[in-house]
Amino acid sequence: MRCAVLREGHLEVLEREAPLPGPLDVVVEVRAAGINSADLLQRRGLYPAPPGSPADIPGMEMAGLVAGVGTQVHEALLGRRVCGIVGGGAQASHCVIASEHLIFLPERATWVEAGGFAEAFLTAHDALVAQGQLREGERVLISGATGGVGTAAVQIAHHLGAHVIAVTRTGEHHEALRAFGADETITLEDVAAIEPVDVVLELVGAAHLSVALHRLAPFARVVVIGVGNGGASLEVDLRRIMATRATLTGSTLRSRSRDEKTVVVAAATAFLAPLWASGDLSVPLSRSFALDDVGAAYDYFALPGKFGKVVLVVE
Amino acid sequence: MRCAVLREGHLEVLEREAPLPGPLDVVVEVRAAGINSADLLQRRGLYPAPPGSPADIPGMEMAGLVAGVGTQVHEALLGRRVCGIVGGGAQASHCVIASEHLIFLPERATWVEAGGFAEAFLTAHDALVAQGQLREGERVLISGATGGVGTAAVQIAHHLGAHVIAVTRTGEHHEALRAFGADETITLEDVAAIEPVDVVLELVGAAHLSVALHRLAPFARVVVIGVGNGGASLEVDLRRIMATRATLTGSTLRSRSRDEKTVVVAAATAFLAPLWASGDLSVPLSRSFALDDVGAAYDYFALPGKFGKVVLVVE
Repeated sequence: MRCAVLREGHLEVLEREAPLPGPLDVVVEVRAAGINSADLLQRRGLYPAPPGSPADIPGMEMAGLVAGVGTQVHEALLGRRVCGIVGGGAQASHCVIASEHLIFLPERATWVEAGGFAEAFLTAHDALVAQGQLREGERVLISGATGGVGTAAVQIAHHLGAHVIAVTRTGEHHEALRAFGADETITLEDVAAIEPVDVVLELVGAAHLSVALHRLAPFARVVVIGVGNGGASLEVDLRRIMATRATLTGSTLRSRSRDEKTVVVAAATAFLAPLWASGDLSVPLSRSFALDDVGAAYDYFALPGKFGKVVLVVE
Repeated sequence: MRCAVLREGHLEVLEREAPLPGPLDVVVEVRAAGINSADLLQRRGLYPAPPGSPADIPGMEMAGLVAGVGTQVHEALLGRRVCGIVGGGAQASHCVIASEHLIFLPERATWVEAGGFAEAFLTAHDALVAQGQLREGERVLISGATGGVGTAAVQIAHHLGAHVIAVTRTGEHHEALRAFGADETITLEDVAAIEPVDVVLELVGAAHLSVALHRLAPFARVVVIGVGNGGASLEVDLRRIMATRATLTGSTLRSRSRDEKTVVVAAATAFLAPLWASGDLSVPLSRSFALDDVGAAYDYFALPGKFGKVVLVVE
């Protein structure tokens, strides 16, 4: 197989032997694989793949055709169009994934769209629903709304019936965010003056969150799933937590167990699949690159001001 | 009635007209009333009583005899030995309390013990069980274990079947804490080296909690219900929250609605009443004072190194 390989902070595309599926796994012939901020961290040596995943082949999401099944998996899956998340190894022509984690593509989905779907939408759904307990009619602040997870979260929160406040760095892409269901589109400076919110989805880090902490409604839930340019060190006034009875939590999807991911996939898919099939969700594409240009794709991903996903196309 | 009255940071005991109960309230002839850290804050002008409670008569817990009932409350309550929490006004010879919030005393309970029971035990039970979700076999760190809430929390956590790690300032009172069910008794310096814990009950503040944040087990729950000498400003590493999937939350009991307090009282009493009746729970008394010496009692309460409650006795 052909695959991106990480060597001392640099990416190259090499030939490797294709991986074999475990008894409950399948092998996917990859057509497209998204890039995520975790990949950039991994390139810098800061975020190694979890045990059991390829250590030097990056990539946490992909879409393609089932090309092989493990001994305990039914052959009826062969040839199905699927996408899904993996602990690593997705930026390659072949990728092993747990059969329980497969998401079947709706007819209308293109490969590029599907390659950038799973990580962002599963992460956003788990963060908003399982962790944030976002309910219809509540107000949610989404910090870092223009990225892959952000654009997914805006759409999911809108379809949950929440009032969606999308925060971007400089006010860019506000029309596109409104088209996705954002009720308000603001910049960081505006956060200090918003009406209190029930849920904060923090994708940027401490610099953004420290402002949002002043705008929490009673029983607010703050969910941190990304600390990028905003930094990781947050100053929390414990009296404010006690007074609002707010909850601060966070997680990453990648480090979870196979069984935990199965629960995430099942819960998210039940909500997302009909919306994806009907065209009520979409994966905005910032730009696609050929797998051979993986280094350039990562460099592009690192630039600010994008809207939506960066996806590698595997011919 | 006679009551402690707060005037510009000073306490004196004055005669006032006794309060009248609302339709669903009762009037208690108070025999003993505990002092809590919130009272000290209130004396400094930092923590006003919630709306509907006497603004200048402090006291959040008391025990005594039901001496009058509201129009909707059955007269069978008259003369019953009770204790309970109020938003203020407990440090007086007569106090109005919601009839739904009454806790009936076991035969063995003395007035002094009962006067210091409600606030500490309800707060500790709500924090450990409702907020912290502490379960049998889990490890709980109780920071500030020698105070009223701390000694209650050690006993409750022990009876829940948890492994209890009690933290004190200087290693004082360790034998008494072990007798209450603490499995480990340590000082702040030792916290950095403990095995990870599932629940942290923080009664001291940021200085203590910043150490404990490094010792969180996966899915740990951190519950902040006091920021005293430890300060309120906590530096949180968001990557650590994401990696452990910990939750940080907090609350105060006093500010909750009447209905919310009813739920707290019901849940706590179901667990606590049999243990109190059988002598398996007790309220350690640091010292009691006559109501007339309320100022001296507050000053004593403010000293470090106490073990258990400070209670005012009303003759």
